[in-house]
Amino acid sequence: MKAGFVGLGNMGQPMARNLLRAGHDLTVFNRTASRAEDLVAEGARVARTVAEACAPGIVMTILADDRAVEECTLAEGGILSALPPGGLHVSHSTIGVALSRRLAEEHGRRSQNFVSAPVFGRPPAAAAAQLLVVAGGEAAAVERARPLLESLGRKLVVLGADPAMANTLKLAGNFMIASMLEAVSEALALARKSGVAPAQFLEVLTFFQSPVYDTYGRLMAEERFEPAGFKMTLGLKDVRLVLAAADSAVAPMPLASLVHDHLLSGVARGLGEADWSALARVAAEDAGLGPSPR
Amino acid sequence: MKAGFVGLGNMGQPMARNLLRAGHDLTVFNRTASRAEDLVAEGARVARTVAEACAPGIVMTILADDRAVEECTLAEGGILSALPPGGLHVSHSTIGVALSRRLAEEHGRRSQNFVSAPVFGRPPAAAAAQLLVVAGGEAAAVERARPLLESLGRKLVVLGADPAMANTLKLAGNFMIASMLEAVSEALALARKSGVAPAQFLEVLTFFQSPVYDTYGRLMAEERFEPAGFKMTLGLKDVRLVLAAADSAVAPMPLASLVHDHLLSGVARGLGEADWSALARVAAEDAGLGPSPR
Amino acid sequence: MKAGFVGLGNMGQPMARNLLRAGHDLTVFNRTASRAEDLVAEGARVARTVAEACAPGIVMTILADDRAVEECTLAEGGILSALPPGGLHVSHSTIGVALSRRLAEEHGRRSQNFVSAPVFGRPPAAAAAQLLVVAGGEAAAVERARPLLESLGRKLVVLGADPAMANTLKLAGNFMIASMLEAVSEALALARKSGVAPAQFLEVLTFFQSPVYDTYGRLMAEERFEPAGFKMTLGLKDVRLVLAAADSAVAPMPLASLVHDHLLSGVARGLGEADWSALARVAAEDAGLGPSPR
Amino acid sequence: MKAGFVGLGNMGQPMARNLLRAGHDLTVFNRTASRAEDLVAEGARVARTVAEACAPGIVMTILADDRAVEECTLAEGGILSALPPGGLHVSHSTIGVALSRRLAEEHGRRSQNFVSAPVFGRPPAAAAAQLLVVAGGEAAAVERARPLLESLGRKLVVLGADPAMANTLKLAGNFMIASMLEAVSEALALARKSGVAPAQFLEVLTFFQSPVYDTYGRLMAEERFEPAGFKMTLGLKDVRLVLAAADSAVAPMPLASLVHDHLLSGVARGLGEADWSALARVAAEDAGLGPSPR
Repeated sequence: MKAGFVGLGNMGQPMARNLLRAGHDLTVFNRTASRAEDLVAEGARVARTVAEACAPGIVMTILADDRAVEECTLAEGGILSALPPGGLHVSHSTIGVALSRRLAEEHGRRSQNFVSAPVFGRPPAAAAAQLLVVAGGEAAAVERARPLLESLGRKLVVLGADPAMANTLKLAGNFMIASMLEAVSEALALARKSGVAPAQFLEVLTFFQSPVYDTYGRLMAEERFEPAGFKMTLGLKDVRLVLAAADSAVAPMPLASLVHDHLLSGVARGLGEADWSALARVAAEDAGLGPSPR
Repeated sequence: MKAGFVGLGNMGQPMARNLLRAGHDLTVFNRTASRAEDLVAEGARVARTVAEACAPGIVMTILADDRAVEECTLAEGGILSALPPGGLHVSHSTIGVALSRRLAEEHGRRSQNFVSAPVFGRPPAAAAAQLLVVAGGEAAAVERARPLLESLGRKLVVLGADPAMANTLKLAGNFMIASMLEAVSEALALARKSGVAPAQFLEVLTFFQSPVYDTYGRLMAEERFEPAGFKMTLGLKDVRLVLAAADSAVAPMPLASLVHDHLLSGVARGLGEADWSALARVAAEDAGLGPSPR
Repeated sequence: MKAGFVGLGNMGQPMARNLLRAGHDLTVFNRTASRAEDLVAEGARVARTVAEACAPGIVMTILADDRAVEECTLAEGGILSALPPGGLHVSHSTIGVALSRRLAEEHGRRSQNFVSAPVFGRPPAAAAAQLLVVAGGEAAAVERARPLLESLGRKLVVLGADPAMANTLKLAGNFMIASMLEAVSEALALARKSGVAPAQFLEVLTFFQSPVYDTYGRLMAEERFEPAGFKMTLGLKDVRLVLAAADSAVAPMPLASLVHDHLLSGVARGLGEADWSALARVAAEDAGLGPSPR
Repeated sequence: MKAGFVGLGNMGQPMARNLLRAGHDLTVFNRTASRAEDLVAEGARVARTVAEACAPGIVMTILADDRAVEECTLAEGGILSALPPGGLHVSHSTIGVALSRRLAEEHGRRSQNFVSAPVFGRPPAAAAAQLLVVAGGEAAAVERARPLLESLGRKLVVLGADPAMANTLKLAGNFMIASMLEAVSEALALARKSGVAPAQFLEVLTFFQSPVYDTYGRLMAEERFEPAGFKMTLGLKDVRLVLAAADSAVAPMPLASLVHDHLLSGVARGLGEADWSALARVAAEDAGLGPSPR
């Protein structure tokens, strides 16, 4: 089907490619236009503005953060003004529940639909169309988007009418990853202070058969926090959104608070640009440890 | 090789069976003698006392908790008095670092050796000889036990001379599982208060490909806390041992403290005999939720 | 000196009265006009609009929360538009650092000055001119306001040019009170579960000679949470502002997080309209305790 | 009345002096005998052994910690063996609930009585007979000790038959002080990172009229952590006893856990011998702050 697609970053580009390969007719837009070139070879049209990408009446967006989504949607010439009544905005970005609800309201006011459909998985999973897609919004709007959503991943979970539910689940997922980083950080500091070598700790960690533990455990044990795969400042931003969701839902999340405070401490200690697995350094310093000897 | 084996519970019985199948010559002891019967058919001799099980000069133990290990080792007629000088005690129990160090000291005083070799894995993994074995103790003693240890699992990680290092790693592992339970508990409460059905939450949880999340996530989403696979009181005991290890190593573990406090609250609320995944109920009640509707 | 005064609530009314008694020439405004009557008898002029209260070129405000201050200052006909260039807005409200900085910026853009001067003390202290006033803003502006500020209390602490510093200190103060409530809540739950009667606990608490402990300890021991002196929802709002200040300053405050989570849990349990000392009930329930027997 | 008195440290000496001045007939003992000399001038007899101090049939003890009390009571030649049946041991030390219960049991087995009567107040309050005394034990035993207890302070709070209740309250008191240190530490770090000078912070802190805040706030603002008035290692020991009491009573104390973890981190960072108000340094470092500029 015909759709616009805005945002060709590390996630957006492979997602758009899979949509093209599944036979959809995409009009793509990216602020840095060069990122659209590869996709043209696979059949994409290129829009010169966000508004042009809205012409098909359905537009998908995947952008960096709340600010980018807000700007792209609500600013002059943005999606809100470009989509016709009856148009549909499908948002894949990891944004907060407040913004999600506000977008739903603003689109609704213009008789447009809003579906929030954040995705689970990293760029390789996006490339392999193995994402998990979680969609919230009015049932008819989600059904309309279904052919697009099913082209993105291996599974689509459809929630209820409040799009913010999908954002909540995405944020909850990021919270669980952050919690695992915290747990490994503390366990590693305990092990080191008990005389266990980080490499031995790693051998035990593999027992859990968790891709999260495997990926981050290695970074932590080897203290390879640069270059960042995911910056600590971004991890902190996500945990802030989790806590805002918790406040909004009136559901206390003390573990999210704990992780927030340690990430904030990491930033205060100068680790903001390091990978968020540098949480391990926070726990190590709290235990009086310096960098581990090689 | 010849060895004694004390403790034929859910873990000990399949472990002893694998030792027999690997060709070792075992003398087994269990307080409830009937549990030894099956093993006799597979070639085990039966000891009538702990002391008899020490006759081979090497004895392996896997018992419920600190108290049981203390009793079996230090009481009159226990391992300490029964093992000859040069004898070896290999302890597979999940015990605290203080007791581990005390046992090493007491055995050392009698010119005996002590190896702490706790195992990772549940009864099915024990039956399949797929345990992860982590061993701490004097190098020569660990080497002496190696043929036995390698018959128990798929991997042996050898640590340094302090047996308590092995116990620390085992406790750290249990801490990581407990942390995952806490994370899922909070995320599930957030999801429920945001209008997401527990079953939908579960679908997202599978994304993590974690056996721990899969097993416990289901129990939590379906609120099947009875009968307990692992009682909350036992989980609390383990987290207490983690915190004692952290105190001993001077390594703060705020996430372990948080989990401890929630497990303690669970016990205070009457959930002590429930499965420790009832942590989900603590988080739910803290969010003002009752049992979830069916 | 001549000044406008907006907000004649429980704090504003006695503050305005003290300004009149100190000889200042006040033009007062309150949304519910009847609250101005008493002050007329003491010499106040009454303004019919916020804008009229700005006529003297200096206007003091003390309002309920961020929203009220935002509305009163930034809305059409608000202080921002009514004050002349060179005018001064002195804000006594307990507001967040983000709003404080925004007000400073907006006033600055119009060549007006903004001084943030929150006050410590409750209505009786306000009536007795015994408040502690903490002022942040450009030095010249603070000096201009000094005669007014010194009429309000027993002490004026002058900070630097960033008005948000004053709000930070005020919020830090509220955080310290909230922390004391949490400490007493936990200690009381421990005492009760150990068999100590709440009245005996109170006798010990007096040892600390702290007005905060005395006031709230009694409410907690006697479980008199209704009617609320200060609602739990308002306490939660303040702790949220503390955490926002901590985020802004990149200074982790784990104790503030803990108190936040417990207040949020209190609201989730239906205690939002109760006095915030009902934190004691949260701690009691977490310890498996019901209401204490009389 | 006639009584023995064991332990003439910073608290014990002024307490013994007040007993003498109130007309009691004391037989005192201290491991370092020279500390008894001053008291002889005021009428005390000197015992050469703990056993001699038990001769009057009533003996009061105030010692440094659990280990000292255990040694003095349970070791060969200790109080347990020296007191006659019907004898009374009044313990003023800050000890854990487990030891308190064990002492009650051991004394009971010998038909002796045990009263736990820890005191609130520091050496100057002890000297001025202004302590708060909290007593737990069998009613008849407490009544027997009353003339002694009332000579020590300005108030006696009598609890029920379980002596551990008194220890719980004493520990709860120390917990509340520790909590106040944590609160000030975090607030001070926030203030410093917001540009507020420590001296200005102090001015605001006085508003609370709390001797605890005044004493420790000054040490924190001026970073005078050496020499220690009360070492961080001792503060940590007390908080461990609080947490053990909480575990025993099945009452979660997350704020005590938080303070424990920060004190433990302080010790890990090398602050164990510093005053426990160096908690402020832990909070400062967690916020990325070094020592504050003079």
